[in-house]
Amino acid sequence: MKSQGDSCSQQEVSSYSRSVFSGKNVSAMDRWVACKLMQLIGNPALRLKLWNNEELMSPQKAVGTLHFHDRGSLYRVITNPDLHFGDLYSAGRISIGGNLVASMEEVYRSMQQVSKSSLIAQVITAWQKRPRTNSLNGSLNNIHHHYDLGNEFYELWLDKEAMQYTCAYYPDVEASLEEAQIAKMHHVSRKLQLKPGDAVVEAGCGWGGLARFMAKHYGVTVRSYNISKEQVAYARNKAREQGLDSQIEYIEDDYRNISGEYDAFVSVGMLEHVGQQQFKGLGGVIDKCLKSNGRGLVHSIGRNSPRLMNAWIEKRIFPGAYPPSIKEMMDIFEPYDLSVLDVENMRLHYAKTLEHWLQRFDENDKKISQRFDENFTRAWRLYLAGSIAAFTTGELQLFQIVFSRQENNQIAWTRSHLYTQD
Amino acid sequence: MKSQGDSCSQQEVSSYSRSVFSGKNVSAMDRWVACKLMQLIGNPALRLKLWNNEELMSPQKAVGTLHFHDRGSLYRVITNPDLHFGDLYSAGRISIGGNLVASMEEVYRSMQQVSKSSLIAQVITAWQKRPRTNSLNGSLNNIHHHYDLGNEFYELWLDKEAMQYTCAYYPDVEASLEEAQIAKMHHVSRKLQLKPGDAVVEAGCGWGGLARFMAKHYGVTVRSYNISKEQVAYARNKAREQGLDSQIEYIEDDYRNISGEYDAFVSVGMLEHVGQQQFKGLGGVIDKCLKSNGRGLVHSIGRNSPRLMNAWIEKRIFPGAYPPSIKEMMDIFEPYDLSVLDVENMRLHYAKTLEHWLQRFDENDKKISQRFDENFTRAWRLYLAGSIAAFTTGELQLFQIVFSRQENNQIAWTRSHLYTQD
Repeated sequence: MKSQGDSCSQQEVSSYSRSVFSGKNVSAMDRWVACKLMQLIGNPALRLKLWNNEELMSPQKAVGTLHFHDRGSLYRVITNPDLHFGDLYSAGRISIGGNLVASMEEVYRSMQQVSKSSLIAQVITAWQKRPRTNSLNGSLNNIHHHYDLGNEFYELWLDKEAMQYTCAYYPDVEASLEEAQIAKMHHVSRKLQLKPGDAVVEAGCGWGGLARFMAKHYGVTVRSYNISKEQVAYARNKAREQGLDSQIEYIEDDYRNISGEYDAFVSVGMLEHVGQQQFKGLGGVIDKCLKSNGRGLVHSIGRNSPRLMNAWIEKRIFPGAYPPSIKEMMDIFEPYDLSVLDVENMRLHYAKTLEHWLQRFDENDKKISQRFDENFTRAWRLYLAGSIAAFTTGELQLFQIVFSRQENNQIAWTRSHLYTQD
Repeated sequence: MKSQGDSCSQQEVSSYSRSVFSGKNVSAMDRWVACKLMQLIGNPALRLKLWNNEELMSPQKAVGTLHFHDRGSLYRVITNPDLHFGDLYSAGRISIGGNLVASMEEVYRSMQQVSKSSLIAQVITAWQKRPRTNSLNGSLNNIHHHYDLGNEFYELWLDKEAMQYTCAYYPDVEASLEEAQIAKMHHVSRKLQLKPGDAVVEAGCGWGGLARFMAKHYGVTVRSYNISKEQVAYARNKAREQGLDSQIEYIEDDYRNISGEYDAFVSVGMLEHVGQQQFKGLGGVIDKCLKSNGRGLVHSIGRNSPRLMNAWIEKRIFPGAYPPSIKEMMDIFEPYDLSVLDVENMRLHYAKTLEHWLQRFDENDKKISQRFDENFTRAWRLYLAGSIAAFTTGELQLFQIVFSRQENNQIAWTRSHLYTQD
């Protein structure tokens, strides 16, 4: 347990008086609850400020200030920190002074130190049992929520090259976002050993940038499935503009309805939305559509061990999202004897990608607040900053998994071709 | 179902006569049983020859001849093909004419085509339920069986450089066995990001070659655990000869007794002997001994999906051996939030390694038969050839898994350093 500049004590609790429970006043009970909250999350090195501007904790190496702007926000967070913190932050009832990313990292690191039998762990575990579904209709609603916010919104802060809303790959840590997204698409294409004339099927194509890239640079034909109407319309338009519409077919349909046979299967950033119960079904889709010498790649946010997505992100930002562990992801491959050839963990690349996104988001925050509102902007800032912290602290991983059929011996002899080509 | 030059028919079965069941004669029943056996394993493209030299099947594209030298061998194989085939081949009662590896590959490929609900699949499944243990004492007996055959035996066909009885890494497909074993040890050392002064712990060190290589080329200190007395004696002697004994401590003890804290954990070719029930325990050993910025590597034979080792190999060659699937291997890492950074499947490299071993083994088969006997030589030839076939047909995989603690951000930014260093 870290030593803290802690002004709470049991004495204060015993001096608790019911009369001050309402209003702007801060009671001993309020102080005790606030300190207890910090203790439950492992006493992160954050200053703690209450609604009367009283600073309750001032740890020496504090990286930021957690400020509760009213009593209700403190008590609501206590009942369900995982969900309510995000909502209250978005509403401006909680704020974080200082560096938001560093403060979130500090919270993640301190929570990792807390014993798994602690109250907070139990609260989170209870929440993890909440039911979710990814039926065909459920998926549609979930995806609309996030991806149909308007292409213009994402254009403000994603890369200008291919609108990739997935982890980039930085061959050099100093690469720009555009360079890193191009490098990611090459990395994926090389891992798939694409050659001219190959037929590729893509499950979940976003704004279609990867399909256009593969068609243009690797001479393949691509059928890309996506259930977001707005994204598919955007993708088709772009392909027409770039004269690639004869090579690419964007299909507004669920990945479960993929038909045909292909040399390569690719899915970048869809698995998070598939739902763990559907993994075996996804494997069946792959097994049905992959030729005997076919190769595949699945790129997904993941975990070191099974745990649900943060409740607030799952409820407000990414409905139905679940980042699986490798063990869970194997339910896609093992039932069909698909052979896993390569797994690469790129979590620090996702932290870097998110830093670039957050920087552009902040540069455009006025526009975004005008288009939506302040609450929306705060929510998305928290989501982007919190995600950076989750990747830098190892709460989240990014796995790229390459696979083939068991009997395919046309696989790459080594991985050196990923690092030596232009 | 492949078309076959099949001389069996139901008519012949009905002409079965009890009187010819013994002796050199071949009855219609014998023919039916022999053909049924081939059918059960998916009708591989092999000629089938009986004890009277009658050729029963002559498929056009036959890659070899399966020869039963007596009636008993045919009927014993039927009762438990997984176990008895190896024993009868070793005893010279079954032989394979033509290319042994190609014939074994043909059998593996045809068996992969057979429905999982077939009789042979059921027989194998039943065998897969056989109980095995890897208690501390059990492990000791299992390891003696295989590794204490005498260092001279292994010296006849393993690499001269470091006596590596594990998969080599061929940066170039034309590399020699010695070059490939050196490349493997560099590959492992680079994946572990070893630097001078690092403390390394090794679980299962064979004849200690990797420990000496790391100490010599990467300036680290190594504590290597192995329960084979003969191997440890050999390893200590070699380290003394090479002036490396101040950097390396070979410990004749079980990996479960590892003590101390280390910058790197490495285990090459031990996991196959650990037993799946012990994986979580192995993870606990790693979790206990790895420093916060520590890295680890586990290198093991594996499977695309859970299935036991071939019964004969498990009983006669490698007692207690089990090649796990990736899903099973995750029981080492996930309970401790160890972060999997990289998985590389090198199955074709193991096929190549085994080809080199088999070639040297065949060059020394007279010496080996003199030291042991003909049965031993046949058994080991079958084991080596069958293993080549298992890797080329995707029955077996070779996984190298790199991991670190969740919070370690000193991990390699990309994997390019594995391919660009000298």
